[in-house]
Amino acid sequence: MTIEAEGQRMKRVVQTAAALLIGSELLSGKTRDENLHSLAATLRALGIRLTRAVFVADEEGAIAAEIRALSSTVDVVFSSGGIGPTHDDVTIDALARAFDVPLLVRAELEALLLSEHGAPLSAAYQRMALAPEGAQLVASGEVRWPTIVMQNVWVLPGIPEIFRMKLAVVREHLRGPGPFFSRAVYTQLDEVSLKPQLDATVARFPDVEVGSYPKWQDHSYRTKVTFDAASAALANAALEDFCQNLPSAEVVRTE
Amino acid sequence: MTIEAEGQRMKRVVQTAAALLIGSELLSGKTRDENLHSLAATLRALGIRLTRAVFVADEEGAIAAEIRALSSTVDVVFSSGGIGPTHDDVTIDALARAFDVPLLVRAELEALLLSEHGAPLSAAYQRMALAPEGAQLVASGEVRWPTIVMQNVWVLPGIPEIFRMKLAVVREHLRGPGPFFSRAVYTQLDEVSLKPQLDATVARFPDVEVGSYPKWQDHSYRTKVTFDAASAALANAALEDFCQNLPSAEVVRTE
Repeated sequence: MTIEAEGQRMKRVVQTAAALLIGSELLSGKTRDENLHSLAATLRALGIRLTRAVFVADEEGAIAAEIRALSSTVDVVFSSGGIGPTHDDVTIDALARAFDVPLLVRAELEALLLSEHGAPLSAAYQRMALAPEGAQLVASGEVRWPTIVMQNVWVLPGIPEIFRMKLAVVREHLRGPGPFFSRAVYTQLDEVSLKPQLDATVARFPDVEVGSYPKWQDHSYRTKVTFDAASAALANAALEDFCQNLPSAEVVRTE
Repeated sequence: MTIEAEGQRMKRVVQTAAALLIGSELLSGKTRDENLHSLAATLRALGIRLTRAVFVADEEGAIAAEIRALSSTVDVVFSSGGIGPTHDDVTIDALARAFDVPLLVRAELEALLLSEHGAPLSAAYQRMALAPEGAQLVASGEVRWPTIVMQNVWVLPGIPEIFRMKLAVVREHLRGPGPFFSRAVYTQLDEVSLKPQLDATVARFPDVEVGSYPKWQDHSYRTKVTFDAASAALANAALEDFCQNLPSAEVVRTE
């Protein structure tokens, strides 16, 4: 309990986040991105609001411009991809450019590479020892290789399995101001029929985010309506308000 | 043959595209996006370069700002989502705001809604008859409901099944300047070992886009190297140049 509480206190509290997904293969349709959804679900569970996600190709200038734009508008940015040793891995270079600092050899990274691969390090490994001046190296019990964090930008790898592994480091270090509370109702009515009740509940609950999602080619329900709020009581109240105006035969289930 | 050639001539030629994926549920991790990959693959096959993709929540101001930014930097923008009748469907409003024009009832849309649902149209259906002033309605043989195109912004629905259906309209009306040619080699070497050969081929073929993709937890190969060019001859030449410097035992296959 004490250790848990201690860990909680040490986490940095952030409200908003953005994702920067880097890789020409994601925009050419060669590869289907998996990382946005993993990140979104992780941040949601932490109570951090992901407000924007941007996909760009492996181009240093474009990546640097995005980093600059995103890092100035949200509390924390997570990049994915472009951090290997090859010519198309330019995220670290772009990061240095975005913050207008040089790349420097980091003794901690160099030592890790030397212990793994022996001396002398090839050009490829030398490149992997670089970080922008002023970057933090965030370590974790679970993940051996440290994560580069430059100001509010966390640099995560593109390979989905390693990306998901690294999310443990995010969970160890960051949290939102409080959890999100969600309720949902599945109904047999379409959005057009639901609009009057939806509009009424939206008007009565300005602090609840109400979402309406029609289902296509699934006959178990037609529309899912979600209620997201900062407290369970508020989410519940909005759901109950909405259901009260709905014929009970049209409600498939709530969750 | 004549009809085919006629069809080809009538397509508008565009070089670059961007995607705007709209929906709070995509950023909260509730829903996994499927549309970016479908769009990317479709554009790739048409020879159109997708240079950027942005995910935003259902907020009119944020969507309008993105539409404005994207439509001024690429030839064509495709939005996905936010076009139903409910309060959280604000793409059409955002589109009008982005181009600073009013929303008007479109007679063609109203007629379609009346023929489907009869008079009088409910508030929900009335909303679905609106389009920004000056928008085109792009029809298609395959898809009954017309697609709203405002200047260079194509408005597509968010539901993946309907989104994919609507891509037929895109294929009917747009094409790139020419097809892309891709080759790939799968090797047993890791990126660090491949770096010298990669750098040499990249330097010798400045017009070929060379990508290097390590595979994780798959033992059939370690790295996939791709060569993308405007001609088959150029893609082939780069692949051959690269393979020439590779021990043949390390090449799993080429494609």
